[in-house]
Amino acid sequence: MDCMEKLSNIWKKNDSMVCVGLDPDLGKLPECVKNAEYPIFEFNKAIVDATAPYVCAYKPQAAYYAGQDCDDELAMTIDYIQENYPEIPVILDVKRGDIGSTAEQYAKEAFERYHADAVTVNPYMGSDAVNPFLKYSDRGVVVLCRTSNPGSKELQELVTTEGKKLYEHVALLARDKWNSAGNIMMVLGATFPEELKAVRELCPEIPFLVPGVGAQGGDVEKVVSYGRRADGYGLIVNSSRGIIYAGKGDDFAQAAGKAAELLRDQMRAVK
Amino acid sequence: MDCMEKLSNIWKKNDSMVCVGLDPDLGKLPECVKNAEYPIFEFNKAIVDATAPYVCAYKPQAAYYAGQDCDDELAMTIDYIQENYPEIPVILDVKRGDIGSTAEQYAKEAFERYHADAVTVNPYMGSDAVNPFLKYSDRGVVVLCRTSNPGSKELQELVTTEGKKLYEHVALLARDKWNSAGNIMMVLGATFPEELKAVRELCPEIPFLVPGVGAQGGDVEKVVSYGRRADGYGLIVNSSRGIIYAGKGDDFAQAAGKAAELLRDQMRAVK
Repeated sequence: MDCMEKLSNIWKKNDSMVCVGLDPDLGKLPECVKNAEYPIFEFNKAIVDATAPYVCAYKPQAAYYAGQDCDDELAMTIDYIQENYPEIPVILDVKRGDIGSTAEQYAKEAFERYHADAVTVNPYMGSDAVNPFLKYSDRGVVVLCRTSNPGSKELQELVTTEGKKLYEHVALLARDKWNSAGNIMMVLGATFPEELKAVRELCPEIPFLVPGVGAQGGDVEKVVSYGRRADGYGLIVNSSRGIIYAGKGDDFAQAAGKAAELLRDQMRAVK
Repeated sequence: MDCMEKLSNIWKKNDSMVCVGLDPDLGKLPECVKNAEYPIFEFNKAIVDATAPYVCAYKPQAAYYAGQDCDDELAMTIDYIQENYPEIPVILDVKRGDIGSTAEQYAKEAFERYHADAVTVNPYMGSDAVNPFLKYSDRGVVVLCRTSNPGSKELQELVTTEGKKLYEHVALLARDKWNSAGNIMMVLGATFPEELKAVRELCPEIPFLVPGVGAQGGDVEKVVSYGRRADGYGLIVNSSRGIIYAGKGDDFAQAAGKAAELLRDQMRAVK
């Protein structure tokens, strides 16, 4: 099914805008999965089974699989979700940014090799870096706009002679140039709620992927009240460590389920 | 050996500033390697053996390996170069851009999993995306500045209220903030020689990785005369398709060697 349709459906079905970041660090896995043949896959599988009723998306962070030389467990994880929870979109967080035939290879990687529903893309190289992904019109393309880290201001907050900040230029490119098939989304960090609000005003309909709640300190209430659309949806609020490491023992999956449920409830409660 | 030292030595030893881009497309490999157990590795190996006397670096483009599901052949290629041509640096072109523990995983991928001497990094997320790579002080970090594609102007040429273009801000961050261990380099596209010249004036010493000659139409003479440092070196001019597909038959490696030699000679001849 089309990624954007999947997302619209699951927001309503699960009444949730929580995304679980699957960023498993081998050094932090609980004892009970450490000795499995595929420890990262077993960990992810248990997390997914426990959190599926409470989420609108999963977001595996490709760096953890690339850095730990376990690409096969990334593939197994995504395939597991696609088979068992086909209603929940998977966003492969790779932040690719390249052009032409190289970008086509990255799109092939995300959508054909790994079967992701959506992928994160870095806009620094302009349309040439985004278009090869957009061509897969049934998949979502999530462009970095204003990221959650402190150093993001070094470039993203530069003000141009047009009186706009760099991230606002990105938002306008996304809205006016890259969204012709309706499959664009944007990353807006939870740590900068005012900027998130400004971009929601520019782009009333585009879904936002929001990292930075939990460990990075973003304010859930502000994110929801500033970021949701007129229809009450429009957000994919990611938590990684706060959910996947909520428990450290044999009950890690149960603890993750509770943490996801709690975040869902916190977001639901925002007036 | 330290990446920057390796680079300084090989510029002089081979009297060359040519970099060969190892971007092998399975669909374009010559018949004679197509049926090998590791066709991409066999292709790369032959190209490397034929071009090694004429180059200052190799640049495998990670997307081709990721998109074609042959990460093992990327690892085999880099290890082959490190073992047989330890004097030639390998730049892994991945254009990673992420932060914190995620960027650390990407640095681990490039430097520990793949044993690259240097890696390309996207600056959109600021210092948080660059620092985890810089910590490996014996490796090189190549930050995108002004890229060779037409769409690069959409963001990189925006002029800020400080009267500078975005790529100039990146160049100054690289020079004044990211180069404390002396291991920074920058991408400047051959297709924008005037911009390359402007950045060379800002940064007289930093090595430039220059894509865009050959297939993309960059002017070799301008690149060299505008981009080389006072000492005559300072450039890593990449050609991929123009070298690796110079011949289509059994003599593909020999043709690649000739194409690399020719590019080296063209660059040497620039007054």
